[in-house]
Amino acid sequence: LTQQETIAEVGEFGLIERLEKVLESEGLKAEGTALGIGDDAAVLRVREGWEVLVTCDALVQGRHYLLEFTTPTDLGRRAMAVNLSDIGAMGGVPRHAVVSLGLRRNTPVEHVEAMYRGFAMELRPYGAAIVGGNLTMVEGGAFIDVTLLGEVEAGRAIRRSTARAGDAVLVTGCPGQAAAGLRLLKEAGDARALQEHPLVQVLTRPQARAREGRKAALTGRLSAMIDTSDGFLGDLGHVCAESKVGARLFAERVPVSQALRQVAEKWGEDPLELFLRPSDDYELILTCKPEHVQEVREVITGVSQVGVAEVGVLTDRGGEIVLVQEGEERRLSGKGWDHFAVEG
Amino acid sequence: LTQQETIAEVGEFGLIERLEKVLESEGLKAEGTALGIGDDAAVLRVREGWEVLVTCDALVQGRHYLLEFTTPTDLGRRAMAVNLSDIGAMGGVPRHAVVSLGLRRNTPVEHVEAMYRGFAMELRPYGAAIVGGNLTMVEGGAFIDVTLLGEVEAGRAIRRSTARAGDAVLVTGCPGQAAAGLRLLKEAGDARALQEHPLVQVLTRPQARAREGRKAALTGRLSAMIDTSDGFLGDLGHVCAESKVGARLFAERVPVSQALRQVAEKWGEDPLELFLRPSDDYELILTCKPEHVQEVREVITGVSQVGVAEVGVLTDRGGEIVLVQEGEERRLSGKGWDHFAVEG
Repeated sequence: LTQQETIAEVGEFGLIERLEKVLESEGLKAEGTALGIGDDAAVLRVREGWEVLVTCDALVQGRHYLLEFTTPTDLGRRAMAVNLSDIGAMGGVPRHAVVSLGLRRNTPVEHVEAMYRGFAMELRPYGAAIVGGNLTMVEGGAFIDVTLLGEVEAGRAIRRSTARAGDAVLVTGCPGQAAAGLRLLKEAGDARALQEHPLVQVLTRPQARAREGRKAALTGRLSAMIDTSDGFLGDLGHVCAESKVGARLFAERVPVSQALRQVAEKWGEDPLELFLRPSDDYELILTCKPEHVQEVREVITGVSQVGVAEVGVLTDRGGEIVLVQEGEERRLSGKGWDHFAVEG
Repeated sequence: LTQQETIAEVGEFGLIERLEKVLESEGLKAEGTALGIGDDAAVLRVREGWEVLVTCDALVQGRHYLLEFTTPTDLGRRAMAVNLSDIGAMGGVPRHAVVSLGLRRNTPVEHVEAMYRGFAMELRPYGAAIVGGNLTMVEGGAFIDVTLLGEVEAGRAIRRSTARAGDAVLVTGCPGQAAAGLRLLKEAGDARALQEHPLVQVLTRPQARAREGRKAALTGRLSAMIDTSDGFLGDLGHVCAESKVGARLFAERVPVSQALRQVAEKWGEDPLELFLRPSDDYELILTCKPEHVQEVREVITGVSQVGVAEVGVLTDRGGEIVLVQEGEERRLSGKGWDHFAVEG
């Protein structure tokens, strides 16, 4: 085991220099950056006729990640992906990231460098770049706080509050997998052996659907969009609450991956429950008129291999989410993490 | 002692509702907010011909503040002020804030509400508002991470890299007081008794010079500007390094407050040293041609009571900062926190 150089050894200014070198070698450049890292603030140009999107999401050690379950590169990718997901869910284009880190002094410099390479891996496909940030030492758990700016044509951001009764409910991918991956890791004797498990990969390397969200928005057919960071039911609940609509979900249309089905069987759980429950998968829930479902689905599957399932329809019964399964109806609540409950 | 309700008791969603109520009652509204809190991202409009400024600064418990030395309201004010200072130091107008909090579960809800009122107190004078954020629980030290967006006329941001040899060096207020206030608190048996001490007030209630910076920028006379968050010498060092100039400082022109002079005497220290050393005072260092000093000084003193001292002149001796005292020259280094050193 070679001794790794720590932040304490190189100092804060030393670390900043090292990270600037990483960014230089990554060569990220975002259009519209008049002034990047290194002054009191960055200066950004916005295209005429476009608006600015701003989102912020933090990963906190011990709460959102454990170092024994992930790598620094994956951690950087995930911290950026969760923010890219938000910009995509507004139908926008990611542009400029600001990274605020709270790090322990004994953190190896190499880990921070790897994290930055992870940021770059996620930003590069969008032509986005890091334009600023902040670095501070912490005594307790570390944090990675990213603020991401994006752009969208004026008036064209896709909100969660504008869905209409009668609209179809679409979802990308198979939500519920990230939470299952986390449970696998927690139950495992040796977490490392599970790194390549498909459910663990969904957790540690989430794929932001920002390109998919952008393409879907450009069809002009979406009435609402949101990403699934609170779990499918929680986030559909946000759409219903904000849009003052209800929803009917059809159990047989719920997308369940083979991997999720397998662990559900092992755990003696209904995979449908795993789909509904809190899980930070960063898939998209989209709503549109039924006649536009095919068009929306096609632009998304034109971007990536991700599946798009039509899982339900919105109703005028505000806030009421109902699951239809084998002819029976079951009323579900529509709240997120804190208040999650399935009523009988 | 009444039992205070904690975050654990109201839950994260409960806390968010409470904070939304605080923001409603504060009634902050920022021009250009197409969509504020509550969706995947906020949507902001930028005036044609203006650019966007972005800065980010975090306060971390145990490192930047101790709960026994401050109040939640002051903490909120300070977290916002340190960011307002950066936008002001670019010559811009603060507009939209994004607040990311990492809080302990046993934090009283009242404290977080008070912190938000502190944010609002600082934002209101600028017509700025909070448009989004993130909330997460932490096990260790709390953090308050603010990203602040501002606006500036295209091409008119004042950088730290554009100062020229021959320019005068101005500084607002009396840097060095915040560090002295911190030392007072640390040495005191009873921190509470010192809350109203002028040096402690500089530390716990820093006045961001954002209006002053903006007005000074509008004169069109500034060649560079920076705020003094690393201490006068550290931040002048940044200007010199980035602008490839040196500086000559005149000891007799250095602004020292009565309060700083008193504690310096008590400690047996040279007040000049306290002025130069690391201290996060959030004053401004400004540079301009000597013939424009009076004009710049007048617009600043037209905004507030703060003093503006002409403490030196920039030279073509790149990176070399010299102090002239009673005819003697002493060479000072120009680095910040980590590498601070005074050479003999």
